[in-house]
Amino acid sequence: MRQYDTFELTFQGAEPEGSQVSVDLSVIFTLNGTQKEVKGFYAGNGVYKVRYFPTEAGTCSWQTKTSLALSGRLNGSEECEAAASAHGMVKADGIHLKYEDGTRYIAVGTTIYAMVHQEKARVEETFATLAEAPFNKIRFCVFPKHYDFNHNEPELFAFEKTDGKWDVNRPCFAFWDMLEEQIRRLERMGIEGDLILFHPYDHWGFAQMSKEECFVYLDYLLRRLSAMPNLWWSLANEYDLMEHFDRSWWPEFAAYIHENDPYGHMLSNHHCITQWDFSDENTTHCCLQSSAMVRTPDFQDQYGKPVIFDECCYEGNIPYGWGNISGRELVNRFWTTFVMGGYCTHGETISENGRLEDDTVLWWAKGGALHGESPERIAFLRKIMEELPGDLDPVKSMWDQEAMLEQLKDPEIAARTPVVVKEVAKMPKEQFQEFMDGNREIAGHCGEDVYLQYWAKHCTCVADLVLPKGNSYDIEVIDTWEMTRTKVLSHVNGNVRVPMPGKEGMLVIAKRI
Amino acid sequence: MRQYDTFELTFQGAEPEGSQVSVDLSVIFTLNGTQKEVKGFYAGNGVYKVRYFPTEAGTCSWQTKTSLALSGRLNGSEECEAAASAHGMVKADGIHLKYEDGTRYIAVGTTIYAMVHQEKARVEETFATLAEAPFNKIRFCVFPKHYDFNHNEPELFAFEKTDGKWDVNRPCFAFWDMLEEQIRRLERMGIEGDLILFHPYDHWGFAQMSKEECFVYLDYLLRRLSAMPNLWWSLANEYDLMEHFDRSWWPEFAAYIHENDPYGHMLSNHHCITQWDFSDENTTHCCLQSSAMVRTPDFQDQYGKPVIFDECCYEGNIPYGWGNISGRELVNRFWTTFVMGGYCTHGETISENGRLEDDTVLWWAKGGALHGESPERIAFLRKIMEELPGDLDPVKSMWDQEAMLEQLKDPEIAARTPVVVKEVAKMPKEQFQEFMDGNREIAGHCGEDVYLQYWAKHCTCVADLVLPKGNSYDIEVIDTWEMTRTKVLSHVNGNVRVPMPGKEGMLVIAKRI
Repeated sequence: MRQYDTFELTFQGAEPEGSQVSVDLSVIFTLNGTQKEVKGFYAGNGVYKVRYFPTEAGTCSWQTKTSLALSGRLNGSEECEAAASAHGMVKADGIHLKYEDGTRYIAVGTTIYAMVHQEKARVEETFATLAEAPFNKIRFCVFPKHYDFNHNEPELFAFEKTDGKWDVNRPCFAFWDMLEEQIRRLERMGIEGDLILFHPYDHWGFAQMSKEECFVYLDYLLRRLSAMPNLWWSLANEYDLMEHFDRSWWPEFAAYIHENDPYGHMLSNHHCITQWDFSDENTTHCCLQSSAMVRTPDFQDQYGKPVIFDECCYEGNIPYGWGNISGRELVNRFWTTFVMGGYCTHGETISENGRLEDDTVLWWAKGGALHGESPERIAFLRKIMEELPGDLDPVKSMWDQEAMLEQLKDPEIAARTPVVVKEVAKMPKEQFQEFMDGNREIAGHCGEDVYLQYWAKHCTCVADLVLPKGNSYDIEVIDTWEMTRTKVLSHVNGNVRVPMPGKEGMLVIAKRI
Repeated sequence: MRQYDTFELTFQGAEPEGSQVSVDLSVIFTLNGTQKEVKGFYAGNGVYKVRYFPTEAGTCSWQTKTSLALSGRLNGSEECEAAASAHGMVKADGIHLKYEDGTRYIAVGTTIYAMVHQEKARVEETFATLAEAPFNKIRFCVFPKHYDFNHNEPELFAFEKTDGKWDVNRPCFAFWDMLEEQIRRLERMGIEGDLILFHPYDHWGFAQMSKEECFVYLDYLLRRLSAMPNLWWSLANEYDLMEHFDRSWWPEFAAYIHENDPYGHMLSNHHCITQWDFSDENTTHCCLQSSAMVRTPDFQDQYGKPVIFDECCYEGNIPYGWGNISGRELVNRFWTTFVMGGYCTHGETISENGRLEDDTVLWWAKGGALHGESPERIAFLRKIMEELPGDLDPVKSMWDQEAMLEQLKDPEIAARTPVVVKEVAKMPKEQFQEFMDGNREIAGHCGEDVYLQYWAKHCTCVADLVLPKGNSYDIEVIDTWEMTRTKVLSHVNGNVRVPMPGKEGMLVIAKRI
C-alpha cells in the first residue's frame, strides 16, 4: 500500500443473486486511526473487488463487512508507504486547484468525447498524441456518442441487455475493464479524466434511463472508480438538452455522488443553454460553455470556486459555429482566461482534407492525431504558467460599479469625478456587464511577485503598468502566437511604460527580482 | 440656378445693429409653384447672403423680405436647369440611404475630428489623402478639440470675443468662410460632411455655453450651411459627457434644427455611455458607438432607420482600448455591418514610429496621411457594395425568439421541436441578446437577386446556402482580407454546399444569373 496509489483487495465468491451492482460488500479501512468505509463491487467471473485510496503514509488495517461467502484475505494490516511521485487527487482550493500534497494543478484540458469507444488502433494513436500534447485533463464520456462524425458503433457498452433491454444491474465487465485501463493510462501520464456521466447525444437509450436506473449506474460507477485518483465527475455534457431527465434529478445525482464517493472528487455539470447552478453545495467548480472569457473574475467572485471554460468553441473548420474558430482565436481565449486565474479547455474539429463524412476523424470526437495550430501555443502557455511562483489572482478592475456608486454618494468626490465614470456608475446591470466585456483589463498577479497583463486584440505600442514602488521588477514582453519572449526592461517599479510591438496577442510579465 | 447646386444671393448693407446672427432677412423662393422661405445671414464686411438649394428643374422666382436697407437684386426669377452630375442631399430611405435623385448612397465614413482646425499644409495633405481614399463621409467638429494628440491651438474659432468672452452673436466670418471652403471641397469629391455641432473635449468654453448661446450658434450655422447639400448634423460627439448641457436640451436642439433647416439634412446624436434615443422624431438615423455589429438588424427593427456604426474602435496602436484594434479587426467589423445592410465608419490612430507625443499626428484627430491596412480593404468592400443591384436587407435569423415562443404554444409543434430550440425560446431577454451576439448568421440579400453570407471568425470548410429553387445563381467566394474573388459554382440553386478555404474573413456571394 502506498500513499496516493489505488489499493485493491480481491475476493472470490459466487455470482451475485439479483443485482450485480448492489452487492453487500464493504471494507472499513483504518489509516493512522482514521476510519473510512468503502463499498466493493462485483467485477464478473466470481471476482469481487474493494478499492481504497490512502492519502497518508502510516499503518493501515482493514476489516471486511459482507453477508456474502467470499474467499480472500478478509482483514489485514500493512504499512502504507509515503508517496513516490504521485500527488493525490486534485481538489479545489478557493478559485484554484491543488493536488492533495499541495502541488499546484494548472488545468489545461482537451476534449475527446468518445475516446474510449473507438477501435484499438485509434485509441493507441490517441495516447501517442497525448504523450506529446500539453493537456493534463480530458473530457470524455462513459456512454457512446451518436452525433455528426460520431456514428461508429462501439464494441462495448456499460451494461448488458436482459430481454433486449439495457440492464443497469448487469454491468458489462469488459467495458468497465477497458474504461479503467484507459483511466490508468491517463494517470500514468499525469492526466485527469473529466468523466462525463450522462449526455443527450444518444440513440441507444442511455439518455432515456429512469431515475432509478441512473442511481444503479452511479452506484456501480462509484464503487468501481472512486478510488482512482485522476477522475473528476462531470454530471453531463449539456445536461439541459436531456429532455427525458427531469431537472430535479441533477442536484439529486450530485448529492448521491457526494454521499457515495468516499474521496470527494471534483464535480460539476456542463450546459448548453441554461447554466448549471454552480452554487450547488456538491459542485466543486464552474464548468462553463461560454466564450465570455473576460467574465472569469465575475464567476470567481460569484461562486468562490475554480472557473473552467470547458467549452469555448473548438479550433476547426466544420460548418458549426462552435467548431470552426481559428487556432489563433482559441489561443487568445486560453490566455484571456489563464491570466485572470481561470482555466480553459481545448478541442479540435479539423477535417484535414475538408472532407465531411461520417468516417472523418475529428479529435474532439474520436481522438487520433492533432492537426491544429493551438496545441503548440497552449504548451507554451502551460510552461509560462508553471514557471510562476504561485496561482494567479485577477487584478481588480478599475471599473467597479458598486464601489463607484458608493464613492459618488460623497458630493465632494462626485464633484471631481469625470462624467464618464458617473455615466458608467449609473448603467443598468446588463449594460454594465456588456461594458465590462469590452473594457476589462485582462490582468493577474501572484501577490507582489508577478504581474501579468494580456492585451488580446489590442495592438498598443506601449503598455502602462503600475508596479509596487518598494520592489524591483524585470519586464518581459511575450508574443503568445509567435511564442517569443523578450526582456525589455530591468529593475523598474512604480509607473512603468513598456514598449510594445503594436500587435495582437501580446503579454507583459513583470517579475520581482 | 441649377438643380442640386447651392444658389446664393448676395446683398450689401450696413453692419447689423446688435446681434450679427438674428438678422431680419429672408427670401421666399417659388420653384414650380412650391414656396420655401429661407433665412439669410450676415457674412461680415457689409455683405448679407441668402442660400437656396433647388431640388427640381423649372422656373424659380424669389422675393426678399427684410426690414434692412440692403442693395442687391431683392427679387427675380430664372430658369433652374436640370442637375448635371449632382444627386442632391442624402436622405434616409427606410433602413437605407439615397440621394434625392434616387441614387443609392453607401455610407463609408471616416473620422477626422479636428480636420478644419489644422494648419494649411496639413489640411492640404488631408484632402490629397481623401482623394485616394474610399471614404464618402467624414465626421468632423465645428469646435476645436482639446484632448490627447489634440493640443495644438487653432487659428480661428467660430465666434469673436466681446469683453474677453466668446460672443455667439459675433460670428468669426473668417472661420465660417474657411469651414465652408472645406465643406465645398468635400462636396466636389462626393464626400458628405457629418458635422459635429457640440462635443465635450474642450478647454475654450464651447462646452459650457448656455442654452440660449447654443440656440444663437445653431441659428447662424443653419442660416449659413443649410443649403449646402453634403452636410449631416451630428448633434454631438459623446453628448452624454457634456455635463454642462442639461439632458433636456438635446431633443430641443434636434427640434430647433428640424424647424430651422429648410432641407431636412440627416441628423443624429453620438454617445459615449448612454445611447441617444433614436426614436426621437427629428433623428433620421442611428449613430452608434458600439462594437456589437451583429446587432445591426436589431437596431434596424427597433428604429426602422439607417444604422451607422460611427465609432466601433479605430485601427491603431495607441494605449486606449478604443484606439488600438488591428486593421484586420476593423475590416471584419465593416463587413459584418455592411452585409446586414448597415454602415460603418473608419478611424485611424496609428503612431507610425510608436512615439506618443503631443505633436504626433493621428488621422482620427488631425488628418494627414493614412498608414493602416484597412483603407485598401474598405475600398474593396465599397466596390463590391456598389456592384450590387440594390441595398442589402439582413436575412432573417433562424433564431427568432418571439416566433419560437408563438409556435411552441402548439403542442404538436412543441413535441417535435428539438430541446435546444425550446431552451433558447425560454431564455431571459438579455441572455437571448447575448446568445444572438454569438450565433447570428451574418447574411443579407437584395431581393432574390443576390445573397451574401459573411463568415467572420468562422473558418468553415463549407458554406451551406439555401437559394430559391426557381432561380439560377453563380457563387463567388471572397477573401475580404486578401481581396481575392473566386468563382466556385455556377448555375446552382436550392441547397448548395459551397467549398471554402477554412480561413477567417470569408464572404460568399450568390448572384442570380
